[in-house]
Amino acid sequence: MTARNIFYAQSGGVTAVINATACGVIEAARKERRLGKVFAGRNGIIGALREELIDTSRETNKAIAGLRHTPSGAFGSCRYKLKSVEENRAEYERLVAVFQAHDIGHFFYNGGGDSQDTANKVSEFSKNMGYPLTCIGIPKTVDNDLPLTDTCPGFGSVAKYVAVSTLEAGLDVASMAESSTKIFVLEVMGRHAGWIAAAGGLAKTNRGDPPHIILFPEISFDRQYFLKRVKETVNKVGYCVIVASEGARYADGKFVADAGAIDAFGHTQLGGVAPTLVDMIKDAHGYKCHWSVADYLQRAARHVASATDIEQAYAVGKAAVEFALAGKNAVMPVIVRNKGKKYSWRIGEAPLSKVANVEKKVPRSYLTKDGYGISAKGRQYLEPLIAGEAPPPYKNGIPVYVRLKNHPVRKKLPGFDVA
Amino acid sequence: MTARNIFYAQSGGVTAVINATACGVIEAARKERRLGKVFAGRNGIIGALREELIDTSRETNKAIAGLRHTPSGAFGSCRYKLKSVEENRAEYERLVAVFQAHDIGHFFYNGGGDSQDTANKVSEFSKNMGYPLTCIGIPKTVDNDLPLTDTCPGFGSVAKYVAVSTLEAGLDVASMAESSTKIFVLEVMGRHAGWIAAAGGLAKTNRGDPPHIILFPEISFDRQYFLKRVKETVNKVGYCVIVASEGARYADGKFVADAGAIDAFGHTQLGGVAPTLVDMIKDAHGYKCHWSVADYLQRAARHVASATDIEQAYAVGKAAVEFALAGKNAVMPVIVRNKGKKYSWRIGEAPLSKVANVEKKVPRSYLTKDGYGISAKGRQYLEPLIAGEAPPPYKNGIPVYVRLKNHPVRKKLPGFDVA
Repeated sequence: MTARNIFYAQSGGVTAVINATACGVIEAARKERRLGKVFAGRNGIIGALREELIDTSRETNKAIAGLRHTPSGAFGSCRYKLKSVEENRAEYERLVAVFQAHDIGHFFYNGGGDSQDTANKVSEFSKNMGYPLTCIGIPKTVDNDLPLTDTCPGFGSVAKYVAVSTLEAGLDVASMAESSTKIFVLEVMGRHAGWIAAAGGLAKTNRGDPPHIILFPEISFDRQYFLKRVKETVNKVGYCVIVASEGARYADGKFVADAGAIDAFGHTQLGGVAPTLVDMIKDAHGYKCHWSVADYLQRAARHVASATDIEQAYAVGKAAVEFALAGKNAVMPVIVRNKGKKYSWRIGEAPLSKVANVEKKVPRSYLTKDGYGISAKGRQYLEPLIAGEAPPPYKNGIPVYVRLKNHPVRKKLPGFDVA
Repeated sequence: MTARNIFYAQSGGVTAVINATACGVIEAARKERRLGKVFAGRNGIIGALREELIDTSRETNKAIAGLRHTPSGAFGSCRYKLKSVEENRAEYERLVAVFQAHDIGHFFYNGGGDSQDTANKVSEFSKNMGYPLTCIGIPKTVDNDLPLTDTCPGFGSVAKYVAVSTLEAGLDVASMAESSTKIFVLEVMGRHAGWIAAAGGLAKTNRGDPPHIILFPEISFDRQYFLKRVKETVNKVGYCVIVASEGARYADGKFVADAGAIDAFGHTQLGGVAPTLVDMIKDAHGYKCHWSVADYLQRAARHVASATDIEQAYAVGKAAVEFALAGKNAVMPVIVRNKGKKYSWRIGEAPLSKVANVEKKVPRSYLTKDGYGISAKGRQYLEPLIAGEAPPPYKNGIPVYVRLKNHPVRKKLPGFDVA
């Protein structure tokens, strides 16, 4: 039996460490005679549909090693969800045709819940078609909302960014509060789950430290209570630092960010929970406020990534290769937290069918009684995930991130229009 | 003659390295028998007016050394500008009374242009009163807009933050552009001068790299031309990364951020140049956009501070002590760039009367012809300022920043109401 090739694709929003996973896949595959080349999808699964494959075997070992410290998706990612087989059989057939044309026996899909769902569907479809294919999902998401894994690679680094930024901005506001800014709001990602916002809580060492209020999607936003707490905090400690999840919402499900601001052209302006909260606070209390929207900065911030996260991101990539060699199919390597006081972890596995379309929210027990902070249990869960520093190399004051050559694999099939 | 005390105050917006300057002052003063204690103002000059002095001699050497890697203002800063002597003679008299009560012979004012103006006025006033006082201004401002100094401590670190963030977010957008986000706008500080925005240009290594457009306050914003260039860039490289100074403005002087959005309460919403630009782009081209407002995160980001900046911040603090011992008065230590290809610098001095109320803007020759980027000359100026890394110590995944005890000095005078 000849060594068959791997198809690896990055999916959804990229992270500071998804390339560390790619590094884990490629380095492990390079050491293994039973495997052929690793082909990557140009712009994720779209690359497979368009037969735009990247031949990673043409990159040097040094370039591949550099992926470990390079944020973003080195091959391009995409937001593209395959419909069900019933709705769009042509896409599944195309995938199998491309895999067949390039002797691809292993499909590694590196993404969040939707991607694991796709990997699972592709696994079933290829089985039904009689095409031998091992499908391995590899977890990735800054949102940390995948089930069955203790954490998702990508999350630890965004968590560290948010904790460090909250700490630093909190010190800044504390210095200014006497005669100037009294309120600082940091808006962070997490449309459906408050894991990232929760990480802001790690900036707090002592009672009274920032952040004073964290807004989670899991806790209904109560405007009156919020404004009351802001005022109480200013009266007590002189200032108030708020970390707000973009997904913070009212009891009726309406996002706080959708406050209905109208722009100069008469259009409804899309959110920003931070400026919305600041408007509210100014209106009610008249405090001077500052706000920040971290957006992509938080998930791209490889310069302050968590060493633990990087190790785990690499490990799930390596594990995907090991799973494929062991003949496992339709599974995902997961991070398992070992028992014991000192944090340690190992790789486990979960069936894709159980991962797909389940969203893991922050448990109530991880939050304080008032729902405005993290509990000791929440801290116990979060703290090890941001542990350790692994700064990239620098040159001329900025990090040296690798850029791959991304050589295309010669096409063999006719074109295919991606919807 | 007894050793007289120093009064040191932090003023205006704090930075990632203003405490390194405090460290320079205190460490140099501790070594010197001809000097007494260093008293710091609680919340800057307000602390002097209220006779709220902090006795830094009660801090350990270790705590003082820790200031070197701690962002924000350890003693509190303020936004408070003394009026002219004619307008508010009582404040000047109060300052001299407090200095006299605590045997303060040296006044070190660590701030931007306004603070240097104040230090100069205090120098003249005390001279006229016959109170012996050496007044030394110490430069600090992220805006880099002080004249007579090659750069301002605080700027190099915010510049590094902006360069690194632009690089990282640029890689992120590049990964997503094929099927999702095509535009990313990073809003940075600099209401009157575009130095900080210019630093974003350091992220660019090759032609076509982000940032593709930088908006400076120095270059009039032309909406049509801007939108045309955004479209051209997307057509050419697939995406467009924009670094926008909060001070970007139209030819008539109106800020781009003041686009007149109305919030839910019917009030004009204050700015955000980033969301305003995004609205414009969506409206004209329909691209998916993301935006970030760095705000305080940029100036507090000690975790990614420039080693060069930290050294210079420390050096101007140390120099203030040396100047005072040398009997210099109404001067400010400045950074002088030595001639030669390899970057090096030394401490020089400038009279406060020439520093006050002059704003240094980015010279036209530092920008590209189209006004949307930095020229080779601009890069030559900026690049050395972000050189070198000096990460803080970490514990439990976050930096260990010192918190001083800030022991108050016993008051000797009746109270005084600060306006």
